[in-house]
Amino acid sequence: MENISVNSLGHLTFCGMDTLSVARDFGTPLYVMDEVSVRKECRKFKDSITEYYDGKGLVCYASKALCCVYMCRLIAEEGLGLDVSSAGEIYTALKAGFDPEKIVFHGNFKTDAELDYALENKIGRIEADGFGELRRLAALAAAKGVTANVLLRVKPGVDAHTHEFIQTGQIDSKFGVALENGEAFAAVKEALSYGSISLKCLGCHIGSQIFEIEPFCHTAEIMLEFAAKIKNELGYEVPELNLGGGFGIKYTQVDTPADTAECIKAVSARVKAKCKELGLDVPFIMLEPGRKIVGDKGLTLYTVGEVKEIPNVRTYVIADGGMTDNPRYMLYQAEYEVINASRADKPKDSTVTVCGRTCESGDKIGEGLKLQQTVPGDILAVLSTGAYNYSMSSNYNRIPKPAAVFIKDNRIITAVRRQTLDDVISNDVL
Amino acid sequence: MENISVNSLGHLTFCGMDTLSVARDFGTPLYVMDEVSVRKECRKFKDSITEYYDGKGLVCYASKALCCVYMCRLIAEEGLGLDVSSAGEIYTALKAGFDPEKIVFHGNFKTDAELDYALENKIGRIEADGFGELRRLAALAAAKGVTANVLLRVKPGVDAHTHEFIQTGQIDSKFGVALENGEAFAAVKEALSYGSISLKCLGCHIGSQIFEIEPFCHTAEIMLEFAAKIKNELGYEVPELNLGGGFGIKYTQVDTPADTAECIKAVSARVKAKCKELGLDVPFIMLEPGRKIVGDKGLTLYTVGEVKEIPNVRTYVIADGGMTDNPRYMLYQAEYEVINASRADKPKDSTVTVCGRTCESGDKIGEGLKLQQTVPGDILAVLSTGAYNYSMSSNYNRIPKPAAVFIKDNRIITAVRRQTLDDVISNDVL
Repeated sequence: MENISVNSLGHLTFCGMDTLSVARDFGTPLYVMDEVSVRKECRKFKDSITEYYDGKGLVCYASKALCCVYMCRLIAEEGLGLDVSSAGEIYTALKAGFDPEKIVFHGNFKTDAELDYALENKIGRIEADGFGELRRLAALAAAKGVTANVLLRVKPGVDAHTHEFIQTGQIDSKFGVALENGEAFAAVKEALSYGSISLKCLGCHIGSQIFEIEPFCHTAEIMLEFAAKIKNELGYEVPELNLGGGFGIKYTQVDTPADTAECIKAVSARVKAKCKELGLDVPFIMLEPGRKIVGDKGLTLYTVGEVKEIPNVRTYVIADGGMTDNPRYMLYQAEYEVINASRADKPKDSTVTVCGRTCESGDKIGEGLKLQQTVPGDILAVLSTGAYNYSMSSNYNRIPKPAAVFIKDNRIITAVRRQTLDDVISNDVL
Repeated sequence: MENISVNSLGHLTFCGMDTLSVARDFGTPLYVMDEVSVRKECRKFKDSITEYYDGKGLVCYASKALCCVYMCRLIAEEGLGLDVSSAGEIYTALKAGFDPEKIVFHGNFKTDAELDYALENKIGRIEADGFGELRRLAALAAAKGVTANVLLRVKPGVDAHTHEFIQTGQIDSKFGVALENGEAFAAVKEALSYGSISLKCLGCHIGSQIFEIEPFCHTAEIMLEFAAKIKNELGYEVPELNLGGGFGIKYTQVDTPADTAECIKAVSARVKAKCKELGLDVPFIMLEPGRKIVGDKGLTLYTVGEVKEIPNVRTYVIADGGMTDNPRYMLYQAEYEVINASRADKPKDSTVTVCGRTCESGDKIGEGLKLQQTVPGDILAVLSTGAYNYSMSSNYNRIPKPAAVFIKDNRIITAVRRQTLDDVISNDVL
């Protein structure tokens, strides 16, 4: 992670601030984001599209990674678009004043109420994930007397070799219509037959946490061949191509993600070459990074509650959070780097299991982790927790969700307030 | 599950009510509980303690399974105690007017603020999970000038052969102090040395979803041997024994849980015999069923959004909920029985994957499930979702949490209101 260091007290600093002071002032567990780095990553994407693709594209932040009003506003300020997947994410974006025209509404199933809500609010692109949704969308738009600007989600058949749970491009997926069995082509034909639908975009998504550039290039070519087939056989040139997200980040030292600019440079070159070969206009391109924008731009601070050394077995370092604020180890055995922020100048000479506080044995942040010698009261920093942590958090054991703060220019801004006990019971009927 | 049937319309009924009407009136996804069966199970536990253990015990409902004010009030009405594991669960119980004396505060780590809160509110038993917590508790109670009534959590070394994630009795556990290495004995000695601590209870918990009776009996004997050792060597007879929970339920046809009464009958007999053998008074006993009280007493209703048949691959039935309201398939590959409530009179002649609506391939309720022929708009019932579903729910993709309703005497009572979009963003700083 960038912008972490150690100060003269031996404390971990983040964006120049002593994490122990941050923990003391804002409490733990606490999500802490590096706003400057988030914005830098946004600009890297945007500038790369400008430099390598003549600016003919829109990078849409996948808000599912970390969605709150503050984050949507930041993304709007950076001039990016937004990928949303529910009415809740649209609602959040609109509360942030996000331009609806720059929002793409994804998801393998959207209720009629959600599609109506999206049409009502003139959401820029609404994904049709299959025939059923295409038909419902056509009917709902017709009933409203409006045109739905549609993105058709295609399964390109590319398998980017990531964790089984997070592969979404292959044919065995709940998302989209498959290329290989003619389903996608039939869906395009049907989309073009509806007066209330304007087929603006072909979209795909090949996985998550992808380190290589080639899968993106390869996928783009497959999608362009499909666009060429549509042009040749149906006489319609789909103007936009959405390549989705999946750009990997460095969770631990073994991760070797591709550089954003290099990736966009390569994809741009391949898209342009392929369009030339196929006689297509170069399409307006969309990319949807989520994790890449926020994942390695944030960390979580915990207070160590207890340290339980079980001789000849293992040492449990018990944090005051866990699966409730970060379920990714339980879900995917996701690996994280952990630092004892109180003794960051010391060597990592112990091997521990960092576990959470819920009544659940599986509640762990990681096992076999290298860590400094640790005692109760120490502050732990779990790195690269900016994505899919707050957004996946729960109130299991009725534990309040942590606050999320952003650091910017030596100021700390609360983006999401810590839940109170009253918040936790707020929907209980008394 | 009990109290499910099919009416003349071919619809699934639950507690005599047409589930399609319930879904229409309360929306989906919806947690629906059978209050009469919940109460019946409570009485079965209580009556068994009366019948087989001379009433010398307290059954404490493990509220983590399903915690809300309504549920706590129901448990209070049934005369049971409550097992809680955070300030949030205590807060909920107190809001329900629960007698604090009948609450046991568990958890592998409780903050000082939580321990203080528990002492302040005279929570009946506070578990010390290890040396650290014991010392903190002693100090906090001393500072307040009160006596903490303590339960010491012991690892009896019993492995009840359940899923790796939910084993908690063996020595490699974050919970408790181990018997086998002398840790537990040392903790007892230390507990007895504090004037501000009254060691009331020895506690353990050997796992979850246990079908056999023998592990409970065996564990009870181990714990009593430990009590005898304490009596013989330290001259103190710990008056209470808490055997925890873990009583299994029938999720699918392959599950064969022991009957509650049979279990308590057997455990009672073994405890009495062992006490006689060891020259101990028969201890006051506590049991902490959670899943057993609510798990198979509730179901979740979903509306089918889309059905995606992928020839030669599989058929995805997409529900309007999923991992956000029931993460147990993702976490443990937990198996459920699913019924098409709209066509419950039809044979289950298709095999499907029921998946959820979030942008996550792993978001599934189950794979290889037998189901009636299903079309969009049908109502699905996923059975035995009364435990660890609402309590583990999240707002991933900013999807609002469902409502939870209880059926009682042909009335439907809302226990937890459905979240609105405003609820979802309520802690965002605008």
